[in-house]
Amino acid sequence: MLNIRTDLAVEAKEIYEEQNKGKIPGVEVRDYVEQDIKVTEVSVLDDVGEKVMNKPKGKYITLEIPEVTTYDQEGLEEVSKVFAKVLSSLVKLDESMTAMVVGLGNWNITPDALGPRVVEKIMVTRHLKQLIPDQIDEGIRPVCALAPGVLGLTGMETGEIIKAVSEKIKPNLIICVDALASRRLERVNRTIQIGNTGISPGSGIGNKRMEISERALGIPVIAIGVPTVVDAATIANDSIDMVLDEMIRGATQGGKFYSMLKSIDRTEKERMIQELLRPYVGSLVVTPKDVDMVIDSVSKLLSSGINIALQPALELREINQYIN
Amino acid sequence: MLNIRTDLAVEAKEIYEEQNKGKIPGVEVRDYVEQDIKVTEVSVLDDVGEKVMNKPKGKYITLEIPEVTTYDQEGLEEVSKVFAKVLSSLVKLDESMTAMVVGLGNWNITPDALGPRVVEKIMVTRHLKQLIPDQIDEGIRPVCALAPGVLGLTGMETGEIIKAVSEKIKPNLIICVDALASRRLERVNRTIQIGNTGISPGSGIGNKRMEISERALGIPVIAIGVPTVVDAATIANDSIDMVLDEMIRGATQGGKFYSMLKSIDRTEKERMIQELLRPYVGSLVVTPKDVDMVIDSVSKLLSSGINIALQPALELREINQYIN
Amino acid sequence: MLNIRTDLAVEAKEIYEEQNKGKIPGVEVRDYVEQDIKVTEVSVLDDVGEKVMNKPKGKYITLEIPEVTTYDQEGLEEVSKVFAKVLSSLVKLDESMTAMVVGLGNWNITPDALGPRVVEKIMVTRHLKQLIPDQIDEGIRPVCALAPGVLGLTGMETGEIIKAVSEKIKPNLIICVDALASRRLERVNRTIQIGNTGISPGSGIGNKRMEISERALGIPVIAIGVPTVVDAATIANDSIDMVLDEMIRGATQGGKFYSMLKSIDRTEKERMIQELLRPYVGSLVVTPKDVDMVIDSVSKLLSSGINIALQPALELREINQYIN
Amino acid sequence: MLNIRTDLAVEAKEIYEEQNKGKIPGVEVRDYVEQDIKVTEVSVLDDVGEKVMNKPKGKYITLEIPEVTTYDQEGLEEVSKVFAKVLSSLVKLDESMTAMVVGLGNWNITPDALGPRVVEKIMVTRHLKQLIPDQIDEGIRPVCALAPGVLGLTGMETGEIIKAVSEKIKPNLIICVDALASRRLERVNRTIQIGNTGISPGSGIGNKRMEISERALGIPVIAIGVPTVVDAATIANDSIDMVLDEMIRGATQGGKFYSMLKSIDRTEKERMIQELLRPYVGSLVVTPKDVDMVIDSVSKLLSSGINIALQPALELREINQYIN
Repeated sequence: MLNIRTDLAVEAKEIYEEQNKGKIPGVEVRDYVEQDIKVTEVSVLDDVGEKVMNKPKGKYITLEIPEVTTYDQEGLEEVSKVFAKVLSSLVKLDESMTAMVVGLGNWNITPDALGPRVVEKIMVTRHLKQLIPDQIDEGIRPVCALAPGVLGLTGMETGEIIKAVSEKIKPNLIICVDALASRRLERVNRTIQIGNTGISPGSGIGNKRMEISERALGIPVIAIGVPTVVDAATIANDSIDMVLDEMIRGATQGGKFYSMLKSIDRTEKERMIQELLRPYVGSLVVTPKDVDMVIDSVSKLLSSGINIALQPALELREINQYIN
Repeated sequence: MLNIRTDLAVEAKEIYEEQNKGKIPGVEVRDYVEQDIKVTEVSVLDDVGEKVMNKPKGKYITLEIPEVTTYDQEGLEEVSKVFAKVLSSLVKLDESMTAMVVGLGNWNITPDALGPRVVEKIMVTRHLKQLIPDQIDEGIRPVCALAPGVLGLTGMETGEIIKAVSEKIKPNLIICVDALASRRLERVNRTIQIGNTGISPGSGIGNKRMEISERALGIPVIAIGVPTVVDAATIANDSIDMVLDEMIRGATQGGKFYSMLKSIDRTEKERMIQELLRPYVGSLVVTPKDVDMVIDSVSKLLSSGINIALQPALELREINQYIN
Repeated sequence: MLNIRTDLAVEAKEIYEEQNKGKIPGVEVRDYVEQDIKVTEVSVLDDVGEKVMNKPKGKYITLEIPEVTTYDQEGLEEVSKVFAKVLSSLVKLDESMTAMVVGLGNWNITPDALGPRVVEKIMVTRHLKQLIPDQIDEGIRPVCALAPGVLGLTGMETGEIIKAVSEKIKPNLIICVDALASRRLERVNRTIQIGNTGISPGSGIGNKRMEISERALGIPVIAIGVPTVVDAATIANDSIDMVLDEMIRGATQGGKFYSMLKSIDRTEKERMIQELLRPYVGSLVVTPKDVDMVIDSVSKLLSSGINIALQPALELREINQYIN
Repeated sequence: MLNIRTDLAVEAKEIYEEQNKGKIPGVEVRDYVEQDIKVTEVSVLDDVGEKVMNKPKGKYITLEIPEVTTYDQEGLEEVSKVFAKVLSSLVKLDESMTAMVVGLGNWNITPDALGPRVVEKIMVTRHLKQLIPDQIDEGIRPVCALAPGVLGLTGMETGEIIKAVSEKIKPNLIICVDALASRRLERVNRTIQIGNTGISPGSGIGNKRMEISERALGIPVIAIGVPTVVDAATIANDSIDMVLDEMIRGATQGGKFYSMLKSIDRTEKERMIQELLRPYVGSLVVTPKDVDMVIDSVSKLLSSGINIALQPALELREINQYIN
């Protein structure tokens, strides 16, 4: 079996279900629809579930949202309120507790810049609570924000920087935002995954080798991810699968040709994909052509949702007036 | 036969040669290497060549360049000098004649922004020759520059805008720069095509329906194009071809299975690709992940080359001091 | 008397009133407040008014708005609706008539980029009315948009480009948006001037020598301007005035010292200012430090207002969903 | 006496010299010219010098450079080599020792973005020395880079972030780059100050209250600053001074009017300036109109110089090929 990497628990679940009929052992799935948004909660319960899903034990909630555009302010707001509600269900904090929002990724590479772009629009209040506490409403939670960059830009492990800063600042919660890779085009910029297990090594589309999790940092970590690209290799892989499936269906089961097709699948596919994509040095991704504008919309949506969830005492309009 | 669209004459030639052995009728090909750059001149000579190549009669020169990076100033300069030399061979102008450089494409979409980015770095002199002729060296050619945008941004055909402005300004030559789509990943951001037949309707990766050519404008038009993306459908198509080729090779020629594979190729491929890519509304492209930085380098390379070709009386350093 | 240049009719009026008590001959002034916005209509009625005001005959409406920020979407909308209402009173068009929105200024220089930034967010429809008329609601007016750049970027007079394109496209109305210079800091990014006399030569903070007006183009031209900078020389001038005024007040009227102060004012001030600012080559402006973000807000406000005024059949939300 | 704030030691020296004739006590000054660049070394030697200059004991080297433009690559290189030479004289490191380059300032505000823009172009190597030591030349020094943002963006003191990260990473040297305010327009974007005393609280044009210095961090800190703005209040102040000086010169020394002028200077000036600039909320600065492009050039110059100084084993071309 080709090892298919996916950052989304909901995809890991789908892949399992495609390959094995029936319920996934050690995993609980629950889904519902809220305002046109499909919400799927995947709970990895035990070691068996962990192994099957290739994801640490914990909760992974996925929102599948309709297309959004920057200028449809009202549409963005509706989605961000649903997102905020789901996020709030995972954020357990007194109002005086400090949250740190971390935007992972490389700000120079558009589909990887989602995290830093979200961080820019977070309502940052920690310094005001410290410097001018009398002028700041009591209900406002102290929030700080960090865009640590990526290894290639800083020469430092992103996890090291976050660990250093969080040990100094001592927040009570870390919210990490990251761009992911999906296996499915229809998920690109349409799916938000919220998880309480942090960011595992090698996830995301950048370089983040050190785990960013409660285990590593000693503070609860909520990870928010949105797939912004599909790997070019995934498209190639899926194309080949499709033609093989087509032919396997036509072949007499158990026949010689049928076995040949099955064996091609196994031994040859990876080599063919590599040969196909080899000519280009560097990593190739499939994105919508207007990815710059899409990232703009999605980052607005996420920052609004995080602001709402972290500041339950404020209306969205108050938050927006504050920012900038 | 699946109709394969390519903007590059050198690819049209390759596709012909793959499908038909031997020399292309009505087409003359010449190639040579200059400073590690492979230069291929494809001349479409007559109606037969035009039909075979699906390109108007004229000259198409392709430069295949090694990888370049923004910060390797010397490397960029060397390539831009070879490009300038090839371009100069097509630019026949007295020094007093006016050139207009037009950057096609949408500045908001990185891989389509190549043209506007080149135009930003063109040495613009026409107004100085008119307003302060005594302070401007006689050897300096009047040059003006325009980034007309795309239909979706302006509501006007790009060709209409160019025609309107060129009728008012009356340049003696138009140089158009545009981002293209390639069929091959290894050509992306590595190939420069220079042609003297203008831009045909439907070329490029944006919306430019009205021809921009000597025939339409009454002024010689040189078109410079660089492929900056590969269509996601191309990757899918090539993947399917590869697996089919592999199996056809293994099947007994003339046998029943062999024919089945051949027939799948013809009737099914397009449907499969559409099914694969359908989920995403809007156009999907394959690009290097750091396309923002690559477009930056390539636009520097092209603008330097155009500046050198248009201002033979100046050294590159004099041009660079002037710009900004 | 020092010749004080201002792009705002409301400032020309103030300067006249400071220097001469009483009503301005040939000029009619009317003001009112709408939703916290002070609206002043200055009508220059005849040749006398033209000379006194140094502005062509016509109507100049000024809106003085409270501070706005990008993220206060509702605040921006309220202001843009008042602006749209005032603008609509000057736009006399059947719904089938075409409007062309022109964004003047240099997109590379933040405080001069207001016009191009507004144009980016205009609801452009002309091409849809032509290409897919059946799918476009009848009530939608054809609108096109152009950002012609500035002389130093294109080598062509901005007026030439606009004239060329408008002769080809034949719109029924042109709306020009431009960044202005103010004499007063409190007006910067807070004042919108709407006039029906077009843009006069030398106005604005860029280079626009050819008049853009009904007289020059044969089409009604509405000019929208927002002051985004104050000249550094204005600050110097005002500082000197202030200290002189202070001392004149203290001196015995008619005394020798009093006259000396008066005479310094007249003969020396300009020389002193020049000496003060000379060291820096190039033009110096006073801006808020966060001018990048302010221009973002103001351009959103203007584009919303223009979209509402040009598309009376649509709600703002419909317009915003369309854009992008 | 009005307290005149300046970030530049060379200006503090000038102000002292204007107000007091003769040599500054506790301060040593040396200057010379290298390739059209005026280099001034100001050494604050003892407590007396510290008090007079309002700068901590240490060395402040100022380079006054001719105007530079982005596109004049050769001109930029020449200046950056002189800068590198001066900087190298302060950087005492074995080749194996790690340097951390920190870009202070707010990336969203052009004249304050100098530090983050420099950091983007630093040759970052620390991770390579750790991950693939065999592939990295021994002579290459480990360098890491950080752009910590400003208090208003992060909610955390910049000094806290730097302290946290440097305690984790343990560099042997920190180089901080910051945008400064100057008292003189002719210094804006033309002067580089290099000092070995770190960044004192309240310096720079942003908010950086915690000291970034060897005393605070336990690691040598070199601070590189370039003035990118002049405060609008400085222009006002200088204008008023000029007119007062003019009149004082004309008045009979010791006369009543003479004393009045002197007294105005002292008691009224600050009030007048405040009144003048009050209308605008937020900070007003004087910048060249094309500040975006100027910051681009200056950041290239600084990053090249720092790269050369930190990597003495490499040629500039090797460095540039590496970056990106």
